[in-house]
Formats: sequence, C-alpha cells, structure tokens
Amino acid sequence: MLIRKTDPGTTTPVEMDGVKDVSMQVMVGRDDHAPNFAMRHFVVEPGGHTPHHSHDYEHEVYIVAGTGQAECDGETATVTEGDVLYVPANAVHQFRNDSDEAFRFLCLVPMEFDCGTPVPGS
Amino acid sequence: MLIRKTDPGTTTPVEMDGVKDVSMQVMVGRDDHAPNFAMRHFVVEPGGHTPHHSHDYEHEVYIVAGTGQAECDGETATVTEGDVLYVPANAVHQFRNDSDEAFRFLCLVPMEFDCGTPVPGS
Repeated sequence: MLIRKTDPGTTTPVEMDGVKDVSMQVMVGRDDHAPNFAMRHFVVEPGGHTPHHSHDYEHEVYIVAGTGQAECDGETATVTEGDVLYVPANAVHQFRNDSDEAFRFLCLVPMEFDCGTPVPGS
Repeated sequence: MLIRKTDPGTTTPVEMDGVKDVSMQVMVGRDDHAPNFAMRHFVVEPGGHTPHHSHDYEHEVYIVAGTGQAECDGETATVTEGDVLYVPANAVHQFRNDSDEAFRFLCLVPMEFDCGTPVPGS
C-alpha cells in the first residue's frame, strides 16, 4: 500500500518563472501509475508566491496548514487550514503567503490536458 | 471563487451496504462542473467503517484528522493526519476507526469509469 506523509522537509524547490520561495512534492502521480489525476503538496514560505497565471486545466486545492491569499480571476480571499478551493480551467490565479509561517496546501490536477499533453508536475 | 470549509457538521450520512457510522460531503464535484475528478470529505465516527470492497477506479486519500486503520489488499496500516494513500483500481480496501475520536479524510475519485459511467459520490 502506498502511504506517504506530507512533510515540508521532503519538498523540492519549484523553479519556474513567477515563483518565489515555493517547494513541492508529488504525493501521488504518474510515476505511481495513477491514471487520472495527481496530488501534489506545496509549501509557500513567508513572502513567497506561486505564478500569477492561467492554464487549460483545473485545480482542486486543500489547505493543509497556515494562512494564505488565494486570487482567482481578480477576486482575492484569505484561506486557512481545512479550506477547499476550486480553480476552473483558464482562470487567472495565484497563491501568496503574506504571513510569517509556512503556508501549505494540496493541489490536484488532471494527468493530461489538451487531448493527451502531460500536465506539468503530475 | 469556490471556497468551502471541510466541516464535520455539514456532512451527511452515507447509506450503503457495509458502511457503519460514516458521513460525507462532496467538496468539489460534478455539480461544480469539475470535469475530471471529485474531492469528498469523509467522517468516520469511533467504531465506524467504510465498506470492505473494490471497484474499477482508484482513490487518492489525504488524512485530515484523527487516526484510522487503512486496509488495502490484505495489508493494514495505521494512518494519521498528513498521510497520503493511493488505493489502485480493483484493490480490496476499507477504512476503519478503532479510536475514540472522529477519523476524517479526503477521498478523491475520477468523475467517470468504465468509459463514461459516473462514479458514485462524485
């Protein structure tokens, strides 16, 4: 049985335009032969943020720890542990950490988009 | 932006053979027009359990709170907050709560299986 602990100590830095102080770990992905969707654990350090971007696939997000700002199509909300967010395909979105503690969330994506293109980080 | 809090107070009882003292809420699903996969929040009360069964689609699971026993193809592990599990399609599996506190987890499923059949609870 595949069991993995979400652990800020085992994530690796995300190197991508528009990203600041973010690390991630694929918890379940294509390397595990998951056929349909991938679960990733993200850690945004204080002052950090994910890219302000959009793409042709959705996110389903669960906030694991800390407090962050979630922006989606111009609307921004403060989110905390236990919150679930849905970011539809093509929405412009960003996650920011304006707090002084790590902000951690799960972000799930489909394994493919555009009829077969692998989703980055799946 | 769709934001929902995982809350044991807003789940509804699961009525299904083999289930004892389990409630759930679809956090993101087909009613939200999510195209590929659904996120559900499950609460297993002390002494409760999910069905001991298998089906032709996978689970990706995140333990939100409490302690439970996860069985998959004859192997049983104790799982706690922060653990991620992958249950492949067709594996015989069950979640049980032998503790004296609520055991809560997210369980994600693809929206369809068998070439278009809606997954129950998606």
